[in-house]
Amino acid sequence: MTPLAIFRRRKVSPQAALPLKAILFDTFGTTVDWLSSMTAYGQRLGAEKGIEADWEGLAKAWRARYQPAVKPVREGKRPWTGFDTLHREQLDKIIGDFGKAKKLSSSDRDVLTRGWHYLQPWPEVVPALNTLKRHFIIGPLSNGTTRQMIDLARWSGLPWDVVFGADMFRTYKPADKLYLGAAAFLSLQPAEILMVAAHNQDLEAAKKNGLRTCFVHRPTEDPGPTGTFDFVVDNFEHLASTLEPA
Amino acid sequence: MTPLAIFRRRKVSPQAALPLKAILFDTFGTTVDWLSSMTAYGQRLGAEKGIEADWEGLAKAWRARYQPAVKPVREGKRPWTGFDTLHREQLDKIIGDFGKAKKLSSSDRDVLTRGWHYLQPWPEVVPALNTLKRHFIIGPLSNGTTRQMIDLARWSGLPWDVVFGADMFRTYKPADKLYLGAAAFLSLQPAEILMVAAHNQDLEAAKKNGLRTCFVHRPTEDPGPTGTFDFVVDNFEHLASTLEPA
Repeated sequence: MTPLAIFRRRKVSPQAALPLKAILFDTFGTTVDWLSSMTAYGQRLGAEKGIEADWEGLAKAWRARYQPAVKPVREGKRPWTGFDTLHREQLDKIIGDFGKAKKLSSSDRDVLTRGWHYLQPWPEVVPALNTLKRHFIIGPLSNGTTRQMIDLARWSGLPWDVVFGADMFRTYKPADKLYLGAAAFLSLQPAEILMVAAHNQDLEAAKKNGLRTCFVHRPTEDPGPTGTFDFVVDNFEHLASTLEPA
Repeated sequence: MTPLAIFRRRKVSPQAALPLKAILFDTFGTTVDWLSSMTAYGQRLGAEKGIEADWEGLAKAWRARYQPAVKPVREGKRPWTGFDTLHREQLDKIIGDFGKAKKLSSSDRDVLTRGWHYLQPWPEVVPALNTLKRHFIIGPLSNGTTRQMIDLARWSGLPWDVVFGADMFRTYKPADKLYLGAAAFLSLQPAEILMVAAHNQDLEAAKKNGLRTCFVHRPTEDPGPTGTFDFVVDNFEHLASTLEPA
Protein backbone atom coordinates (compact mmCIF):
# COMPACT_ATOMS: atom_id res chain seq x y z
CA MET A 1 0.00 0.00 0.00
CA THR A 2 1.38 3.43 -0.87
CA PRO A 3 1.79 6.11 1.78
CA LEU A 4 -0.89 8.25 0.16
CA ALA A 5 -3.31 5.35 0.19
CA ILE A 6 -2.51 4.78 3.86
CA PHE A 7 -3.45 8.22 4.97
CA ARG A 8 -6.42 8.52 2.69
CA ARG A 9 -8.04 5.19 3.55
CA ARG A 10 -7.99 5.13 7.34
CA LYS A 11 -7.80 1.68 8.81
CA VAL A 12 -11.12 0.46 10.10
CA SER A 13 -11.76 -2.31 12.56
CA PRO A 14 -13.40 -5.45 11.25
CA GLN A 15 -16.37 -4.70 13.51
CA ALA A 16 -18.33 -2.59 11.05
CA ALA A 17 -20.47 -1.20 13.83
CA LEU A 18 -17.40 -0.16 15.82
CA PRO A 19 -14.96 1.76 13.66
CA LEU A 20 -12.35 1.76 16.39
CA LYS A 21 -9.12 3.68 15.95
CA ALA A 22 -7.60 3.50 19.43
CA ILE A 23 -7.73 1.36 22.56
CA LEU A 24 -7.01 2.81 25.99
CA PHE A 25 -6.21 0.57 28.93
CA ASP A 26 -6.61 1.02 32.62
CA THR A 27 -3.31 0.01 34.18
CA PHE A 28 -3.31 -1.12 37.82
CA GLY A 29 -5.10 -4.46 38.02
CA THR A 30 -6.19 -4.37 34.37
CA THR A 31 -2.79 -4.43 32.64
CA VAL A 32 -0.43 -5.18 35.50
CA ASP A 33 -0.70 -7.50 38.49
CA TRP A 34 -0.02 -5.12 41.37
CA LEU A 35 -0.78 -7.76 44.03
CA SER A 36 1.86 -10.36 43.23
CA SER A 37 4.45 -7.71 42.37
CA MET A 38 3.98 -5.59 45.49
CA THR A 39 3.81 -8.72 47.68
CA ALA A 40 7.11 -9.93 46.21
CA TYR A 41 8.78 -6.55 46.75
CA GLY A 42 7.61 -6.49 50.36
CA GLN A 43 8.88 -10.01 50.93
CA ARG A 44 12.23 -9.22 49.39
CA LEU A 45 12.69 -6.00 51.32
CA GLY A 46 11.55 -7.78 54.51
CA ALA A 47 14.07 -10.59 53.96
CA GLU A 48 16.82 -8.04 53.39
CA LYS A 49 15.96 -6.17 56.58
CA GLY A 50 15.08 -9.24 58.69
CA ILE A 51 11.47 -8.11 59.05
CA GLU A 52 8.69 -10.69 58.93
CA ALA A 53 5.23 -9.40 58.11
CA ASP A 54 2.10 -10.15 56.09
CA TRP A 55 3.35 -8.45 52.95
CA GLU A 56 0.44 -9.64 50.85
CA GLY A 57 -2.00 -8.24 53.40
CA LEU A 58 -0.10 -4.96 53.38
CA ALA A 59 -0.23 -4.77 49.57
CA LYS A 60 -4.00 -5.35 49.66
CA ALA A 61 -4.58 -2.77 52.40
CA TRP A 62 -2.38 -0.29 50.52
CA ARG A 63 -4.37 -0.74 47.32
CA ALA A 64 -7.66 -0.46 49.27
CA ARG A 65 -6.63 3.08 50.29
CA TYR A 66 -6.40 4.12 46.67
CA GLN A 67 -9.97 5.34 46.09
CA PRO A 68 -10.18 7.28 49.39
CA ALA A 69 -6.81 8.87 48.58
CA VAL A 70 -7.70 10.16 45.11
CA LYS A 71 -11.25 11.26 45.97
CA PRO A 72 -10.43 14.62 47.63
CA VAL A 73 -8.17 15.50 44.69
CA ARG A 74 -10.83 14.59 42.15
CA GLU A 75 -13.38 16.61 44.10
CA GLY A 76 -11.15 19.66 44.25
CA LYS A 77 -10.83 19.50 48.04
CA ARG A 78 -7.11 18.93 47.74
CA PRO A 79 -4.77 20.51 45.18
CA TRP A 80 -3.34 18.27 42.48
CA THR A 81 -1.24 15.54 44.07
CA GLY A 82 0.27 12.68 42.08
CA PHE A 83 0.20 8.97 42.78
CA ASP A 84 3.75 8.73 44.16
CA THR A 85 2.94 11.15 46.96
CA LEU A 86 -0.45 9.56 47.68
CA HIS A 87 1.03 6.06 47.75
CA ARG A 88 3.76 7.11 50.16
CA GLU A 89 1.27 8.83 52.49
CA GLN A 90 -1.09 5.86 52.50
CA LEU A 91 1.73 3.48 53.34
CA ASP A 92 2.40 5.41 56.55
CA LYS A 93 -1.31 5.24 57.39
CA ILE A 94 -1.63 1.46 57.10
CA ILE A 95 1.77 0.12 58.05
CA GLY A 96 0.99 0.16 61.78
CA ASP A 97 -1.58 -2.57 61.15
CA PHE A 98 1.06 -4.98 59.85
CA GLY A 99 3.17 -5.84 62.84
CA LYS A 100 6.89 -5.55 62.33
CA ALA A 101 6.47 -3.95 58.91
CA LYS A 102 6.36 -0.62 60.76
CA LYS A 103 10.06 -1.06 61.48
CA LEU A 104 10.77 -0.12 57.86
CA SER A 105 12.67 3.16 57.81
CA SER A 106 11.46 6.16 55.88
CA SER A 107 13.92 5.47 53.06
CA ASP A 108 12.89 1.80 52.93
CA ARG A 109 9.30 2.98 52.62
CA ASP A 110 10.38 5.19 49.72
CA VAL A 111 11.95 2.17 48.06
CA LEU A 112 8.84 0.05 48.54
CA THR A 113 6.61 2.85 47.23
CA ARG A 114 8.76 2.97 44.11
CA GLY A 115 7.70 -0.62 43.50
CA TRP A 116 4.44 0.74 42.05
CA HIS A 117 6.55 1.78 39.02
CA TYR A 118 7.75 -1.78 38.38
CA LEU A 119 4.78 -4.15 38.30
CA GLN A 120 4.54 -7.31 36.21
CA PRO A 121 1.93 -7.38 33.47
CA TRP A 122 -0.56 -10.25 33.40
CA PRO A 123 1.03 -13.05 31.35
CA GLU A 124 -0.73 -12.55 28.00
CA VAL A 125 -0.53 -8.75 27.98
CA VAL A 126 2.62 -8.02 25.97
CA PRO A 127 1.97 -10.40 23.05
CA ALA A 128 -1.69 -9.36 22.91
CA LEU A 129 -0.78 -5.66 22.88
CA ASN A 130 1.67 -6.29 20.06
CA THR A 131 -1.18 -7.85 18.06
CA LEU A 132 -3.62 -5.04 18.86
CA LYS A 133 -1.01 -2.41 17.96
CA ARG A 134 -1.02 -3.63 14.37
CA HIS A 135 -4.57 -2.34 13.98
CA PHE A 136 -5.12 0.28 16.64
CA ILE A 137 -3.35 3.07 18.49
CA ILE A 138 -2.80 1.72 21.99
CA GLY A 139 -1.99 3.42 25.27
CA PRO A 140 -2.72 3.46 28.98
CA LEU A 141 -5.23 5.92 30.43
CA SER A 142 -4.29 5.65 34.06
CA ASN A 143 -4.62 7.29 37.42
CA GLY A 144 -0.87 6.77 37.76
CA THR A 145 1.56 9.47 36.70
CA THR A 146 3.04 9.75 33.23
CA ARG A 147 6.40 8.74 34.67
CA GLN A 148 4.83 5.65 36.25
CA MET A 149 3.42 4.70 32.84
CA ILE A 150 6.85 5.16 31.27
CA ASP A 151 8.59 3.10 33.95
CA LEU A 152 6.00 0.31 33.78
CA ALA A 153 6.33 0.16 30.00
CA ARG A 154 10.14 0.12 30.02
CA TRP A 155 10.14 -2.49 32.77
CA SER A 156 7.84 -4.89 30.94
CA GLY A 157 8.10 -4.01 27.28
CA LEU A 158 4.54 -2.70 27.02
CA PRO A 159 4.52 -1.46 23.41
CA TRP A 160 2.38 1.66 23.91
CA ASP A 161 2.06 4.25 21.14
CA VAL A 162 1.33 6.97 23.69
CA VAL A 163 0.95 7.18 27.46
CA PHE A 164 -1.62 9.23 29.35
CA GLY A 165 -1.02 9.74 33.06
CA ALA A 166 -3.47 11.48 35.38
CA ASP A 167 -0.95 14.33 35.80
CA MET A 168 -1.67 15.32 32.20
CA PHE A 169 -5.23 16.15 33.31
CA ARG A 170 -4.56 17.05 36.96
CA THR A 171 -7.47 15.01 38.19
CA TYR A 172 -8.38 11.34 38.56
CA LYS A 173 -10.67 8.87 36.85
CA PRO A 174 -13.62 8.61 36.76
CA ALA A 175 -13.56 12.40 36.09
CA ASP A 176 -14.85 13.14 32.57
CA LYS A 177 -11.76 15.20 31.81
CA LEU A 178 -9.52 12.15 31.43
CA TYR A 179 -11.68 10.39 28.85
CA LEU A 180 -12.45 13.53 26.84
CA GLY A 181 -8.92 14.89 27.20
CA ALA A 182 -7.38 11.68 25.90
CA ALA A 183 -9.81 11.70 22.96
CA ALA A 184 -8.75 15.27 22.15
CA PHE A 185 -5.03 14.37 22.26
CA LEU A 186 -5.79 11.43 19.96
CA SER A 187 -7.80 13.72 17.59
CA LEU A 188 -10.57 11.13 17.74
CA GLN A 189 -14.25 11.05 18.53
CA PRO A 190 -14.94 9.26 21.84
CA ALA A 191 -16.84 6.53 19.95
CA GLU A 192 -13.67 5.71 17.99
CA ILE A 193 -11.95 4.73 21.26
CA LEU A 194 -12.34 1.53 23.26
CA MET A 195 -11.68 1.77 27.01
CA VAL A 196 -10.53 -1.50 28.58
CA ALA A 197 -10.73 -1.99 32.34
CA ALA A 198 -11.40 -4.52 35.06
CA HIS A 199 -13.42 -1.88 36.93
CA ASN A 200 -17.07 -1.09 36.43
CA GLN A 201 -16.71 2.48 37.68
CA ASP A 202 -14.07 3.28 35.05
CA LEU A 203 -16.12 1.76 32.24
CA GLU A 204 -19.36 3.45 33.28
CA ALA A 205 -17.58 6.80 33.17
CA ALA A 206 -16.01 6.00 29.80
CA LYS A 207 -19.42 4.97 28.45
CA LYS A 208 -21.08 8.13 29.76
CA ASN A 209 -18.46 10.11 27.84
CA GLY A 210 -19.18 8.26 24.60
CA LEU A 211 -16.29 5.79 24.52
CA ARG A 212 -16.74 2.11 23.70
CA THR A 213 -16.12 -0.20 26.61
CA CYS A 214 -14.59 -3.57 27.34
CA PHE A 215 -14.69 -5.31 30.72
CA VAL A 216 -11.76 -7.65 31.32
CA HIS A 217 -11.87 -10.28 34.05
CA ARG A 218 -8.91 -10.10 36.44
CA PRO A 219 -8.67 -12.16 39.63
CA THR A 220 -7.70 -9.19 41.83
CA GLU A 221 -10.31 -6.71 40.55
CA ASP A 222 -14.11 -6.37 40.18
CA PRO A 223 -15.61 -9.87 40.11
CA GLY A 224 -17.69 -9.21 36.99
CA PRO A 225 -19.44 -6.60 34.86
CA THR A 226 -22.39 -4.91 36.54
CA GLY A 227 -23.36 -2.86 33.48
CA THR A 228 -23.74 -3.35 29.73
CA PHE A 229 -20.46 -2.99 27.88
CA ASP A 230 -19.51 -3.53 24.23
CA PHE A 231 -17.20 -6.40 25.07
CA VAL A 232 -16.58 -8.68 28.05
CA VAL A 233 -13.35 -10.66 27.75
CA ASP A 234 -11.26 -13.07 29.77
CA ASN A 235 -7.97 -11.30 29.02
CA PHE A 236 -6.22 -9.14 26.40
CA GLU A 237 -5.57 -12.13 24.13
CA HIS A 238 -9.31 -12.74 24.07
CA LEU A 239 -9.84 -9.09 23.14
CA ALA A 240 -7.22 -9.32 20.37
CA SER A 241 -8.85 -12.42 18.86
CA THR A 242 -12.28 -10.77 19.10
CA LEU A 243 -11.12 -7.68 17.18
CA GLU A 244 -8.77 -9.46 14.75
CA PRO A 245 -9.96 -9.66 11.11
CA ALA A 246 -11.33 -13.11 10.32
CA MET B 1 19.90 -7.21 38.61
CA THR B 2 16.93 -7.58 40.94
CA PRO B 3 13.91 -5.33 40.63
CA LEU B 4 14.62 -3.75 43.99
CA ALA B 5 18.18 -2.98 42.92
CA ILE B 6 16.86 -1.45 39.73
CA PHE B 7 14.66 1.04 41.43
CA ARG B 8 17.09 1.82 44.21
CA ARG B 9 20.16 2.36 42.02
CA ARG B 10 18.90 4.64 39.29
CA LYS B 11 20.71 4.27 36.00
CA VAL B 12 23.24 6.99 35.39
CA SER B 13 24.81 8.02 32.14
CA PRO B 14 28.49 7.29 31.65
CA GLN B 15 29.08 11.04 31.48
CA ALA B 16 29.61 11.62 35.19
CA ALA B 17 29.08 15.33 34.77
CA LEU B 18 25.77 14.74 33.02
CA PRO B 19 23.56 12.32 34.96
CA LEU B 20 21.05 12.16 32.14
CA LYS B 21 17.82 10.24 32.58
CA ALA B 22 15.87 11.28 29.49
CA ILE B 23 16.43 12.57 25.98
CA LEU B 24 13.83 14.68 24.19
CA PHE B 25 13.95 15.20 20.46
CA ASP B 26 12.66 17.91 18.25
CA THR B 27 10.79 16.19 15.43
CA PHE B 28 10.40 18.08 12.14
CA GLY B 29 13.83 18.34 10.49
CA THR B 30 15.64 16.88 13.51
CA THR B 31 14.12 13.38 13.59
CA VAL B 32 12.24 13.24 10.30
CA ASP B 33 13.08 14.50 6.83
CA TRP B 34 10.02 16.59 6.02
CA LEU B 35 11.48 17.90 2.75
CA SER B 36 11.94 14.66 0.83
CA SER B 37 8.74 13.17 2.25
CA MET B 38 6.50 16.15 1.49
CA THR B 39 8.10 16.58 -1.95
CA ALA B 40 7.39 12.93 -2.74
CA TYR B 41 3.78 13.20 -1.56
CA GLY B 42 3.27 16.30 -3.71
CA GLN B 43 4.79 14.58 -6.74
CA ARG B 44 2.67 11.50 -6.26
CA LEU B 45 -0.55 13.46 -5.78
CA GLY B 46 0.38 15.64 -8.79
CA ALA B 47 0.98 12.57 -10.96
CA GLU B 48 -2.36 11.12 -9.88
CA LYS B 49 -4.21 14.32 -10.71
CA GLY B 50 -2.20 15.21 -13.83
CA ILE B 51 -0.86 18.40 -12.20
CA GLU B 52 2.75 19.42 -12.81
CA ALA B 53 4.26 21.79 -10.27
CA ASP B 54 7.41 22.51 -8.29
CA TRP B 55 6.46 20.26 -5.37
CA GLU B 56 9.83 20.62 -3.67
CA GLY B 57 9.52 24.39 -3.83
CA LEU B 58 6.00 24.14 -2.41
CA ALA B 59 7.21 21.94 0.47
CA LYS B 60 9.94 24.48 1.29
CA ALA B 61 7.57 27.44 1.13
CA TRP B 62 5.06 25.57 3.29
CA ARG B 63 7.68 24.85 5.94
CA ALA B 64 8.88 28.47 5.79
CA ARG B 65 5.41 29.57 6.91
CA TYR B 66 5.71 27.52 10.09
CA GLN B 67 7.27 30.09 12.41
CA PRO B 68 4.95 32.93 11.34
CA ALA B 69 1.98 30.58 11.81
CA VAL B 70 2.76 29.51 15.37
CA LYS B 71 3.91 32.91 16.61
CA PRO B 72 0.48 34.50 17.24
CA VAL B 73 -0.59 31.36 19.13
CA ARG B 74 2.55 31.37 21.25
CA GLU B 75 2.08 35.07 21.96
CA GLY B 76 -1.54 34.57 23.01
CA LYS B 77 -2.86 36.68 20.10
CA ARG B 78 -4.69 33.67 18.73
CA PRO B 79 -6.43 30.94 20.76
CA TRP B 80 -4.84 27.52 20.84
CA THR B 81 -4.73 26.09 17.32
CA GLY B 82 -2.99 22.82 16.47
CA PHE B 83 -0.56 22.05 13.69
CA ASP B 84 -3.06 20.32 11.40
CA THR B 85 -5.20 23.43 11.17
CA LEU B 86 -2.20 25.75 10.79
CA HIS B 87 -0.66 23.57 8.08
CA ARG B 88 -3.91 23.47 6.12
CA GLU B 89 -4.34 27.27 6.34
CA GLN B 90 -0.76 27.93 5.26
CA LEU B 91 -1.11 25.65 2.23
CA ASP B 92 -3.94 27.82 0.93
CA LYS B 93 -1.81 30.92 1.45
CA ILE B 94 1.19 29.69 -0.59
CA ILE B 95 -0.31 27.40 -3.20
CA GLY B 96 -1.08 30.27 -5.57
CA ASP B 97 2.66 30.81 -6.00
CA PHE B 98 3.16 27.31 -7.40
CA GLY B 99 1.47 27.37 -10.77
CA LYS B 100 -0.88 24.51 -11.45
CA ALA B 101 -0.65 23.24 -7.86
CA LYS B 102 -3.53 25.58 -7.08
CA LYS B 103 -5.77 23.26 -9.11
CA LEU B 104 -5.69 20.83 -6.17
CA SER B 105 -9.18 20.55 -4.73
CA SER B 106 -9.91 21.23 -1.09
CA SER B 107 -10.04 17.50 -0.30
CA ASP B 108 -6.74 16.91 -2.18
CA ARG B 109 -5.24 19.66 -0.04
CA ASP B 110 -6.52 17.86 3.06
CA VAL B 111 -4.80 14.69 1.86
CA LEU B 112 -1.52 16.49 1.21
CA THR B 113 -1.69 18.18 4.62
CA ARG B 114 -2.08 14.78 6.21
CA GLY B 115 1.33 13.94 4.78
CA TRP B 116 2.86 15.82 7.73
CA HIS B 117 1.82 12.81 9.84
CA TYR B 118 3.80 10.35 7.69
CA LEU B 119 7.35 11.62 7.24
CA GLN B 120 10.42 9.43 6.85
CA PRO B 121 13.00 9.57 9.62
CA TRP B 122 16.62 10.32 8.71
CA PRO B 123 18.29 6.98 7.90
CA GLU B 124 20.14 6.32 11.19
CA VAL B 125 17.32 7.45 13.49
CA VAL B 126 15.50 4.20 14.34
CA PRO B 127 18.56 2.06 15.16
CA ALA B 128 20.15 4.92 17.12
CA LEU B 129 16.97 5.49 19.13
CA ASN B 130 16.82 1.78 19.94
CA THR B 131 20.36 2.06 21.33
CA LEU B 132 19.61 5.22 23.31
CA LYS B 133 16.41 3.71 24.70
CA ARG B 134 18.47 1.06 26.50
CA HIS B 135 19.90 3.78 28.77
CA PHE B 136 17.50 6.70 28.66
CA ILE B 137 13.82 7.53 28.51
CA ILE B 138 13.28 8.85 24.99
CA GLY B 139 10.49 10.89 23.46
CA PRO B 140 9.69 13.72 21.07
CA LEU B 141 9.04 17.22 22.39
CA SER B 142 7.46 18.71 19.33
CA ASN B 143 5.40 21.58 18.05
CA GLY B 144 3.31 18.96 16.26
CA THR B 145 0.23 17.49 17.88
CA THR B 146 0.25 14.39 20.05
CA ARG B 147 -1.61 12.56 17.30
CA GLN B 148 1.05 13.60 14.77
CA MET B 149 3.72 12.18 17.07
CA ILE B 150 1.76 8.92 17.35
CA ASP B 151 1.25 8.65 13.58
CA LEU B 152 4.91 9.45 12.84
CA ALA B 153 6.06 6.82 15.33
CA ARG B 154 3.70 4.13 14.03
CA TRP B 155 4.65 4.97 10.44
CA SER B 156 8.39 4.64 11.01
CA GLY B 157 8.78 2.49 14.09
CA LEU B 158 10.17 5.29 16.24
CA PRO B 159 10.50 3.49 19.60
CA TRP B 160 9.44 6.35 21.88
CA ASP B 161 8.73 5.74 25.57
CA VAL B 162 6.42 8.76 25.69
CA VAL B 163 5.27 11.43 23.25
CA PHE B 164 4.81 15.11 24.02
CA GLY B 165 2.86 17.16 21.50
CA ALA B 166 2.39 20.91 21.73
CA ASP B 167 -1.34 20.35 22.37
CA MET B 168 -0.42 18.97 25.79
CA PHE B 169 0.85 22.45 26.69
CA ARG B 170 -1.40 24.55 24.43
CA THR B 171 1.46 26.69 23.22
CA TYR B 172 4.50 26.33 20.99
CA LYS B 173 8.24 26.05 21.44
CA PRO B 174 10.30 27.99 22.30
CA ALA B 175 7.80 28.82 25.11
CA ASP B 176 9.23 27.80 28.52
CA LYS B 177 6.08 25.83 29.29
CA LEU B 178 6.98 22.98 26.95
CA TYR B 179 10.43 22.33 28.41
CA LEU B 180 9.35 22.66 32.03
CA GLY B 181 6.06 20.86 31.47
CA ALA B 182 7.79 17.87 29.90
CA ALA B 183 10.27 17.78 32.81
CA ALA B 184 7.34 17.72 35.25
CA PHE B 185 5.62 14.86 33.39
CA LEU B 186 8.94 12.97 33.45
CA SER B 187 9.35 13.70 37.20
CA LEU B 188 12.86 14.90 36.42
CA GLN B 189 14.95 17.97 37.00
CA PRO B 190 15.55 19.90 33.77
CA ALA B 191 19.30 19.16 34.05
CA GLU B 192 18.55 15.42 33.87
CA ILE B 193 17.10 15.89 30.38
CA LEU B 194 18.95 16.34 27.10
CA MET B 195 17.15 18.27 24.36
CA VAL B 196 18.23 17.34 20.84
CA ALA B 197 17.45 19.64 17.93
CA ALA B 198 18.77 20.95 14.64
CA HIS B 199 17.54 24.42 15.59
CA ASN B 200 19.43 26.95 17.66
CA GLN B 201 16.26 28.69 18.86
CA ASP B 202 14.91 25.46 20.36
CA LEU B 203 18.20 24.66 22.09
CA GLU B 204 18.69 28.17 23.45
CA ALA B 205 15.22 27.97 25.04
CA ALA B 206 15.93 24.49 26.43
CA LYS B 207 19.23 25.73 27.85
CA LYS B 208 17.60 28.78 29.45
CA ASN B 209 15.19 26.39 31.17
CA GLY B 210 18.01 24.28 32.57
CA LEU B 211 17.99 21.36 30.14
CA ARG B 212 21.15 19.93 28.60
CA THR B 213 21.44 20.52 24.88
CA CYS B 214 22.63 18.74 21.76
CA PHE B 215 22.81 20.31 18.32
CA VAL B 216 22.45 17.83 15.49
CA HIS B 217 23.48 18.73 11.95
CA ARG B 218 20.74 18.17 9.39
CA PRO B 219 20.99 19.27 5.74
CA THR B 220 17.55 20.96 5.70
CA GLU B 221 17.85 22.83 9.02
CA ASP B 222 20.10 25.42 10.74
CA PRO B 223 23.55 25.28 9.09
CA GLY B 224 25.39 25.00 12.41
CA PRO B 225 25.32 25.81 16.13
CA THR B 226 25.41 29.52 16.95
CA GLY B 227 25.59 29.00 20.72
CA THR B 228 27.41 26.79 23.22
CA PHE B 229 25.72 23.43 23.67
CA ASP B 230 26.71 20.31 25.63
CA PHE B 231 27.02 18.22 22.48
CA VAL B 232 27.25 18.88 18.76
CA VAL B 233 26.74 15.74 16.68
CA ASP B 234 26.49 14.70 13.05
CA ASN B 235 23.44 12.52 13.60
CA PHE B 236 21.67 10.37 16.24
CA GLU B 237 24.13 7.48 15.79
CA HIS B 238 26.91 9.90 16.67
CA LEU B 239 24.97 10.92 19.79
CA ALA B 240 24.40 7.27 20.76
CA SER B 241 28.12 6.46 20.44
CA THR B 242 28.99 9.58 22.42
CA LEU B 243 26.72 8.60 25.32
CA GLU B 244 27.30 4.84 25.17
CA PRO B 245 29.38 3.35 28.02
CA ALA B 246 32.96 2.71 26.88
